[in-house]
Amino acid sequence: MIFLTPYVRLYWDFEQGSVELTKTFMSQDFLLNNRTAQALYHGAAAAMPIFDWHCHIQPQEIYENKQPEDISALWLAGDHYKWRAMRSYGIEEKYITGSATGYEKFKAWAEVMPFLIGNPLYHWTHLELQRYFNITEPLSEKTADDIWQRANAKIAAGGFKPRELIEASNVACICTTDDSADTLEYHTLIAQDKNFKCRVIPAFRPDKALSIDSPGFLPWLSTLELRVEKKISTFSSLKAALLERINFFETMGCRASDHAFTYIPYARADEKELERIFAKALSGTVLTVDEPDKYKTELMRFFAKEYAHRGWGMEIHIGVIRNNNTEMFNKLGPDTGFDSVTDHELAVNLSRLMDSLDVENNLPRTILFSLNPKDNYVLATMLGNFQSSEAAGKIQFGSAWWFNDNLDGMREQMKALANTGVLGKFVGMVTDSRSLLSYPRHEYFRRILCGLIGDMVEDGLYPNDLETLSQIVQDISYNNAVKYFGI
Amino acid sequence: MIFLTPYVRLYWDFEQGSVELTKTFMSQDFLLNNRTAQALYHGAAAAMPIFDWHCHIQPQEIYENKQPEDISALWLAGDHYKWRAMRSYGIEEKYITGSATGYEKFKAWAEVMPFLIGNPLYHWTHLELQRYFNITEPLSEKTADDIWQRANAKIAAGGFKPRELIEASNVACICTTDDSADTLEYHTLIAQDKNFKCRVIPAFRPDKALSIDSPGFLPWLSTLELRVEKKISTFSSLKAALLERINFFETMGCRASDHAFTYIPYARADEKELERIFAKALSGTVLTVDEPDKYKTELMRFFAKEYAHRGWGMEIHIGVIRNNNTEMFNKLGPDTGFDSVTDHELAVNLSRLMDSLDVENNLPRTILFSLNPKDNYVLATMLGNFQSSEAAGKIQFGSAWWFNDNLDGMREQMKALANTGVLGKFVGMVTDSRSLLSYPRHEYFRRILCGLIGDMVEDGLYPNDLETLSQIVQDISYNNAVKYFGI
Amino acid sequence: MIFLTPYVRLYWDFEQGSVELTKTFMSQDFLLNNRTAQALYHGAAAAMPIFDWHCHIQPQEIYENKQPEDISALWLAGDHYKWRAMRSYGIEEKYITGSATGYEKFKAWAEVMPFLIGNPLYHWTHLELQRYFNITEPLSEKTADDIWQRANAKIAAGGFKPRELIEASNVACICTTDDSADTLEYHTLIAQDKNFKCRVIPAFRPDKALSIDSPGFLPWLSTLELRVEKKISTFSSLKAALLERINFFETMGCRASDHAFTYIPYARADEKELERIFAKALSGTVLTVDEPDKYKTELMRFFAKEYAHRGWGMEIHIGVIRNNNTEMFNKLGPDTGFDSVTDHELAVNLSRLMDSLDVENNLPRTILFSLNPKDNYVLATMLGNFQSSEAAGKIQFGSAWWFNDNLDGMREQMKALANTGVLGKFVGMVTDSRSLLSYPRHEYFRRILCGLIGDMVEDGLYPNDLETLSQIVQDISYNNAVKYFGI
Repeated sequence: MIFLTPYVRLYWDFEQGSVELTKTFMSQDFLLNNRTAQALYHGAAAAMPIFDWHCHIQPQEIYENKQPEDISALWLAGDHYKWRAMRSYGIEEKYITGSATGYEKFKAWAEVMPFLIGNPLYHWTHLELQRYFNITEPLSEKTADDIWQRANAKIAAGGFKPRELIEASNVACICTTDDSADTLEYHTLIAQDKNFKCRVIPAFRPDKALSIDSPGFLPWLSTLELRVEKKISTFSSLKAALLERINFFETMGCRASDHAFTYIPYARADEKELERIFAKALSGTVLTVDEPDKYKTELMRFFAKEYAHRGWGMEIHIGVIRNNNTEMFNKLGPDTGFDSVTDHELAVNLSRLMDSLDVENNLPRTILFSLNPKDNYVLATMLGNFQSSEAAGKIQFGSAWWFNDNLDGMREQMKALANTGVLGKFVGMVTDSRSLLSYPRHEYFRRILCGLIGDMVEDGLYPNDLETLSQIVQDISYNNAVKYFGI
Repeated sequence: MIFLTPYVRLYWDFEQGSVELTKTFMSQDFLLNNRTAQALYHGAAAAMPIFDWHCHIQPQEIYENKQPEDISALWLAGDHYKWRAMRSYGIEEKYITGSATGYEKFKAWAEVMPFLIGNPLYHWTHLELQRYFNITEPLSEKTADDIWQRANAKIAAGGFKPRELIEASNVACICTTDDSADTLEYHTLIAQDKNFKCRVIPAFRPDKALSIDSPGFLPWLSTLELRVEKKISTFSSLKAALLERINFFETMGCRASDHAFTYIPYARADEKELERIFAKALSGTVLTVDEPDKYKTELMRFFAKEYAHRGWGMEIHIGVIRNNNTEMFNKLGPDTGFDSVTDHELAVNLSRLMDSLDVENNLPRTILFSLNPKDNYVLATMLGNFQSSEAAGKIQFGSAWWFNDNLDGMREQMKALANTGVLGKFVGMVTDSRSLLSYPRHEYFRRILCGLIGDMVEDGLYPNDLETLSQIVQDISYNNAVKYFGI
Repeated sequence: MIFLTPYVRLYWDFEQGSVELTKTFMSQDFLLNNRTAQALYHGAAAAMPIFDWHCHIQPQEIYENKQPEDISALWLAGDHYKWRAMRSYGIEEKYITGSATGYEKFKAWAEVMPFLIGNPLYHWTHLELQRYFNITEPLSEKTADDIWQRANAKIAAGGFKPRELIEASNVACICTTDDSADTLEYHTLIAQDKNFKCRVIPAFRPDKALSIDSPGFLPWLSTLELRVEKKISTFSSLKAALLERINFFETMGCRASDHAFTYIPYARADEKELERIFAKALSGTVLTVDEPDKYKTELMRFFAKEYAHRGWGMEIHIGVIRNNNTEMFNKLGPDTGFDSVTDHELAVNLSRLMDSLDVENNLPRTILFSLNPKDNYVLATMLGNFQSSEAAGKIQFGSAWWFNDNLDGMREQMKALANTGVLGKFVGMVTDSRSLLSYPRHEYFRRILCGLIGDMVEDGLYPNDLETLSQIVQDISYNNAVKYFGI
């Protein structure tokens, strides 16, 4: 065995009869399998700042900037990805969301780790250990106690408060995700810290406004009434209130909206019918099956027009079936690890919705995400129908999302985009995370991007033009999104 | 050219200008492209016994233990995979299921072989020739006569009776697939052979009980009446009869059930309506379009509850469109090579069905298979909604099935599972076969598994921890299924 | 660094610590990553003629045989693939289909090029530059002026007229795509040039006859009446007129038909109902939602029967959602880059349609294409239901089409076919193109095919039997299609 570098070993053993290059576990060249990939990542991508234009971090958490208790608090207090993996392994709920101590939960997580071979959680966990804790040992039952102590000592030594973590991760700008009736008070407070180098701006998420068929609609409407200090008794006054909110979000620096749909509704209705449907909902009458779709379609069209006029990006996330487990929903509520991928047809309605906006010059910059990878080519090719010189890649295929946010999913998303569109204008990665330790997911993405491009060059599929390639990699890592959202 | 081993050649030719590692055809390191994969397969996986928990071997065949006439009888008498390939090549039906001699059929199969490049049948055929006949030459028109003679001589020399083949294949346990009205008489007879080292237990397959909309329903019901020696004139008496059968299967060692659905039905009904639907079916009246779904939903819920209480695994196979070719169905009947992949939406109904059971604590251990690889991420993520500490991986994503049971399909299934769940708790492979020579499909699967894991390690994606990896590989090969089904 | 050949460099650098094989950009061994692939491509595939059995070249263009003005005319005058890519990059429409000069459009295209990393247009463009212009430099903003001049000088020097390009590309036969009411006058004229080595035959595309629900139906019907010099006032007389056209196409050498469906209709109706529907359409009354499906189903069944009796191939292209952008459709018309992939279910209706023909012995040789790669396994396995000894691979899975016509799409299509059918009997590639420079797409396909097979051999998955492999490669490149269509 010849050690070529500390990270790459060459096996050349005539007795054993094999010749092999082997990489050590998650070394500096993790995911970078050739010199082009290595040159691109280390030379061009790694130093770029992060613009995390879609995440679920609470602005309150950033504002309060509390010292975390231990690594269990950081890792296991709110991460339903990890909870779900622990349940799949067979861990008791007590050690997941229950009464067990932080140490016990950490130990349970460590026990699961080795069996998560091939899962992105395995890589995220170790990237976080390496980058934030300087720990390179793999986490397992055996190493759990040692890592528990070293990690907690590091946390106690400082640097793990939210704003410290964000700055250490070289994050230039964060878009949080905020209900349309939100006060955005924490955004105001964060902005007052002039020493904090990261810009934190809201993103407008009016899902509750759209959910006319949900039990939470009327309570939400009351909140909105409080916020705008007006009675909302008609569809028209609802729109007026939402417009007020959009204007407020804009004054707070908002550049993006976000929408989640199980399937894409498209059923047109006129104002009169919409008023009728709204009145019906207000009165608590159950809507017929097509009424919510009409309401959602026209309200989306209203939103989109406003976004278009402000140059906001409109993110559309399609294809989650949520809260599948009624028993656990009743115990733990939403966003606790009981959502999955659904499989509705979406091309026809998505096309009609976008065309109905485009034809009136009201189609905003739009980013389409689908949770089901079967939709990759539907989305990737839908883009091309509505591009325009208004923006490079005006309609975008969002990066591999949630259950696709893994090695295979990211490669497939980028290959679908490259095969059918202009990869070079891709607005790239978001963490989509609730965790302050999840910025290495940008590193993970960039390594995969550089790996993909490196392979193309080494296989003779693209010229070995490092200048152009560095530009492309830096654009996808950061510049394209900055230009696209106009921050 | 340098021969590094008998199986790997290194080309290093400055004149020709290429440097390459080339493997010989299906050598001992078939599908094992690096030393980790080789170490895992040869060191950990190969020696594990086989638990074939889903197959279609007839217990009668095992019991009768007849000497096969020749290799044509073993290979071509009942294998609709091969028939289908021969038809696709353009072979006349005479040489497939028709009046041609065994030798003629074998010759026709040999002619097709080389053109099946990339088809799993190509690998299965040669694995079977290597493992059972010690023949390493590729089968083709040219080698057909020689192989015909050598293989038949080997068969004549002995070791090819069903129980001999099963023992030689190191099979510890087989679950056959048995109609809910079956006598299981051959299981009783097999169990009397105390020298036979393999346990043969039934699996409960009540498809005929569920097929209320099929012409075979009433005739099947008569069989069931004979079996339970009771008149079945109500839905309630049907359930009582089926419960009796479930109890009988349990006494025979049954640990698993199996269900096939073109799409997942989910339409709830109360007992009164179910009695009405059942009475309607009994009277021969054609059911309306939603009635069979109601019947199937509630009968499935009845079955599932019983399975849950006995700790049985519930296998659900989704997405076959069967008997597409009416003319050939009329000539040859079902299961003769005229089925294919369908493409219904399935997420919503599957979620509801499982939740309706889970909420009542009646969701059994469940293994979900879909024939359409577009469903991989729907199934792989559905698991996570209903896991519990009752069992490691209580809800399982079944191994790549039927048309997906190939190199790509198996890799994709395992990657989807690994990316979204806990690969380490996977219950692994089944032959799903009618053939006694098909146990090398477990070898094929294990090699692919070790290849996949070997690649991860060599690429630096997982630590080079052979102890843990060997455990994972042995668990997936055998231990997980043993624990899961409780044999 | 050691240069092993002009095309392959071996990095072996102990200081840098890496060992790598790197290929130069699109060298002679482009896409051929091992010696088996290279031997197969250069030794067997490259010299085979081209049979382009599905394309959109205008016979008028071939007949008129005009000298092209410049490379912009050749590349950008009609290629909506390139237009779409330019729009996605953010180029103004003026430089795409607008008033800009050819030079300006070429410059705009050159600017986009480097950002199309991973897009087949990147490879097609450079293959065309290499093969027709002997230019090996990558096209970019920097090289645009130089390449503009050199390419135009080469065009001016001759060899770029349509028939010259076709002959230089070694094309033995072309099937154009022609409306069922077409005069085929240019086919007659082309056939008179006895020196032209390529056979140009029509393919029968009766989409307009099927589009009873389209505003163009009645105008088209008038054209058909003119062509057959008869009044068409009944469904029966429509069929008579179409039969006359089919017979005429046959006298012109036609061997294939072509049909495009967004989804597969299947709704049966008797003659009486069809007459009623046709009369309704004639009278300008809007049809109910199921009437067009009935008309289309039965007219397709009529067509298929006629094809079957003539031994024609029936091509079915499924899954495009067209003209998504109303505004651009109004400006530019159809086929201008505003189509994309749709996602309807198709298995059930496709099965029923094919079975309804097969059961009456009227199922022709059929080639199934789907635009959505999620359908790959539905189509690939549908084939096997309806094969027969009439033809090797009577039912075919068409090569990766349109948005799938790229490295990944072609590999996936061939792997799906190989995994579930007989790759060796595949009828292979078509350009499906409007451009006379697109024949290198056959080279691209053949390289990918040889690469795929080379990998199998080098990985030990298939014997290193160059004779058989060369036969398979030559069959898929050319021979299978010749035999299948009977030209």
